[in-house]
Amino acid sequence: MRPRTRLSLFALTATLAIPAGVAADESPSRKDVQMVAPALDKYTQDRLLGDVWKRPGLSRRDRSVVTLAAVIGRNQTIALSEHLKLALDQGVKPTEISEIITHLAFYSGWANAMAAVAATKQLFAERNIGPDWLPATSPGLLPLNEAAEADRAKRVADQFGAIFPGVVQYTTDVLFRDLWLRPDLAPRDRSLVTISALIANGQVAQSDRPYPDRDEQRPDAARNRRGYHPSRLLRRLAQRVLGDAGCEGCF
Amino acid sequence: MRPRTRLSLFALTATLAIPAGVAADESPSRKDVQMVAPALDKYTQDRLLGDVWKRPGLSRRDRSVVTLAAVIGRNQTIALSEHLKLALDQGVKPTEISEIITHLAFYSGWANAMAAVAATKQLFAERNIGPDWLPATSPGLLPLNEAAEADRAKRVADQFGAIFPGVVQYTTDVLFRDLWLRPDLAPRDRSLVTISALIANGQVAQSDRPYPDRDEQRPDAARNRRGYHPSRLLRRLAQRVLGDAGCEGCF
Amino acid sequence: MRPRTRLSLFALTATLAIPAGVAADESPSRKDVQMVAPALDKYTQDRLLGDVWKRPGLSRRDRSVVTLAAVIGRNQTIALSEHLKLALDQGVKPTEISEIITHLAFYSGWANAMAAVAATKQLFAERNIGPDWLPATSPGLLPLNEAAEADRAKRVADQFGAIFPGVVQYTTDVLFRDLWLRPDLAPRDRSLVTISALIANGQVAQSDRPYPDRDEQRPDAARNRRGYHPSRLLRRLAQRVLGDAGCEGCF
Repeated sequence: MRPRTRLSLFALTATLAIPAGVAADESPSRKDVQMVAPALDKYTQDRLLGDVWKRPGLSRRDRSVVTLAAVIGRNQTIALSEHLKLALDQGVKPTEISEIITHLAFYSGWANAMAAVAATKQLFAERNIGPDWLPATSPGLLPLNEAAEADRAKRVADQFGAIFPGVVQYTTDVLFRDLWLRPDLAPRDRSLVTISALIANGQVAQSDRPYPDRDEQRPDAARNRRGYHPSRLLRRLAQRVLGDAGCEGCF
Repeated sequence: MRPRTRLSLFALTATLAIPAGVAADESPSRKDVQMVAPALDKYTQDRLLGDVWKRPGLSRRDRSVVTLAAVIGRNQTIALSEHLKLALDQGVKPTEISEIITHLAFYSGWANAMAAVAATKQLFAERNIGPDWLPATSPGLLPLNEAAEADRAKRVADQFGAIFPGVVQYTTDVLFRDLWLRPDLAPRDRSLVTISALIANGQVAQSDRPYPDRDEQRPDAARNRRGYHPSRLLRRLAQRVLGDAGCEGCF
Repeated sequence: MRPRTRLSLFALTATLAIPAGVAADESPSRKDVQMVAPALDKYTQDRLLGDVWKRPGLSRRDRSVVTLAAVIGRNQTIALSEHLKLALDQGVKPTEISEIITHLAFYSGWANAMAAVAATKQLFAERNIGPDWLPATSPGLLPLNEAAEADRAKRVADQFGAIFPGVVQYTTDVLFRDLWLRPDLAPRDRSLVTISALIANGQVAQSDRPYPDRDEQRPDAARNRRGYHPSRLLRRLAQRVLGDAGCEGCF
C-alpha cells in the first residue's frame, strides 16, 4: 500500500517522493472517481446527485438521515465522514446525529455505533461542536402510547417470551419505554433510521414488521410493503392447511 | 494500535523502534497468517489455492471476477487491493475493473463502489494505468433484446409499479437500458458480478430471480437454483390453497 | 481526515500541532463516546457492561467468544482489536483464537479471517504470544460420530448433490471430517462461533439448520429456534398441499 499524504506530517512527507492520491481508507474525491471509473462519476452527477437526491417525495434533510443510517448500518467506514458532514450541512442537528448513533447501536450493533463515534468525534472537533450541543443523558421522555405499547409488548411476548425472555425484557425496558421516547430525535426520524438501517442490511423481515403506534409516520415504502410480508402469508397458509391445532408452535 | 511500517517513510521509521509487522488495515502476508493461524495457512495453500481455484468448472479469470465482486460487494476493504492486483494478473482488463466497480455501485451501494475506487486508484497509479485505458463515459451501447426487456419491465412493473414507481423507472432507464448494455464488460460478466455480489451478501431472493435474456449465460449454480426459490414455491402454495381470489395482494 | 497520534511516532508528532483525538479507524475510548453520544456511553455502562454481560445464562468467557465471532463475522475491523484483547483477558486461549479465525474463514469468508489475522498478529506480538502457543497445523483429530455424520452427509447430498457437487465434497472432506474435528477448539465452541457469526449476518436459514451430533451442545437460543424455521414449515406445507409427487424438486 502506498503511504498517505497527511496534513500534519506534510512538512515531513513533502520532502519524500510520495505520489499524490487518495489513501485506501479515505473517501475518494471526484477526480479520483474519474481516474478509475468515469462512468461512475457520470452516474453520480447525473443520476444520484442530479436526480435521486432531488426527487420531491423525501426532503434532502430526510435523504441525508436515511443515507447516514444506511452507511452506519452497513459499517461503510470510508463513507462515514462524508455523509456525517453532508448531514450537518443539510441541517441535521448535532443532537440528532448523536441520537442516531445511539439508536443504531441497538439496531445495527454496538461496533457499528462505535465506528460512527470515531468518525463523528473528528467532525465535531473540526466544527467546534462541544458537549453543550449534545443531548442530555437522561432527559424527560416523550409520552408513551400505552395502548399501542401494550399491544406491541403482547405480540413480542407471545412470539418470543417462552424462549427469549431477555429479548422481551430489553425490547420493552430499553427500547420502547426508553430509547424510542428520548426527545432529541423525533419518532418519525427514529422510524426512518431504523427502517433504513434494516433495509440496507437486507433485514427485511424485521423492517416489514408493523410498528403499531408509528404507522402514520412511516415512509410509504415501508408501510405499503407490509402486505408482502412472507411470514404473514406463511402463517395464513399454515393455519388454513394445518389448522390451528396442527400448527401449534409453527410461529 | 502499533504504527505501520511504510515503504516511503522507511528511511524515517527505520530509525525508530517500530516493531515489524502488518498494520491492522493491510492485507496480511503469508508469514503473518502462519504467525496467527498456521492451520488457516495450510487450508489456504492446500484447499483454496491448490484446489478450489484449480477446479475446471470456472476459469481462473472468471474466479477472479467472481471473487472481486464478492469482496467489493461485502466491502472487505482489507482484501480489496490484493484481489484487484490478482484480477489484473489473471487478465481482467482495467476497463473491466472500471465497469465492475460502476456496475456494483448499483447492486452493492455507492459507498462500496467508492471504497473500491480508492483502492483501485492506487493500483492504477502503481501500474501506470491512465485515462486511455478506461471505458468511455457514454459509449455506443450493445443491442437490446426488446422482447426480453419488455417482459422484464412488465414483471417488475406488476410487482412494484404501484408502490415504488421510482424503482421501476430507474431499473428500466438506468439499469437495463443503459448500465447492462455498456460494451466494456460482457453481459455474461455482468451476470457473474451481480450474482456473486448478491450471494456474498446473502441476498439470495434477488440472485434467484431469473434474468430472462441472460439465462443462457448465467453460471450453473445460479441457473439451477431457481427451482428452489422459496417465493416461487410460496406463490404456488398460496394459489393452490387460497385460490387466486383469496390470494389477492399476496405478492 | 485528521492525522493520528501514534505511539512510536510520538516523539516526532508531539512537536506538530496534532489535535488530540481518536483516529477514524481506531476503537474510540470511553471519553470519545461521551464527547459524541453521552447516552450511548450510559447504555454501554448500565445496560451492556452492567447488565447483559452479567446475565447468568452464558459465562463471560462464552460471551467473549460469541462477540468475537460476531465481530469477525461482520468484519467490524475497528472493534476487532478490542474484542481480541477482551477475549484473552476473559481466558480465551491463543490456540482458541487461532482456531476461531480458521473456523470462520469457512463460515464468514476468507477476507474476514484475513482481517482478523492482521489485528491478531499485532496483539500476539504485544503479548509475546509466539508459535509455541499456536495449534498444530495437522493435529490428531477428535473421534467422528460416524452415524450422525452419515446422516448429515446424506441430507446435504440429497439437497445439493445433483447441482453443487463441490459444496457437498468440501462440506464433507474439509468441514465435517477435518475442521470441526480439530482438537484445539471444543465442538461446543465451534457451534457457538458458527451460530454467532451466522446470526450476526442475518444468515438465519443456515443457523437454524440442525447440526445433528451437536444438538446437545448448542445454546438454547439456537436449539429452540428450530421449531420456527420457515423452510421446515414450508416443506411441511408443500408436502401436505402438493403431495410428495407434486412437490418433486421443491427443496
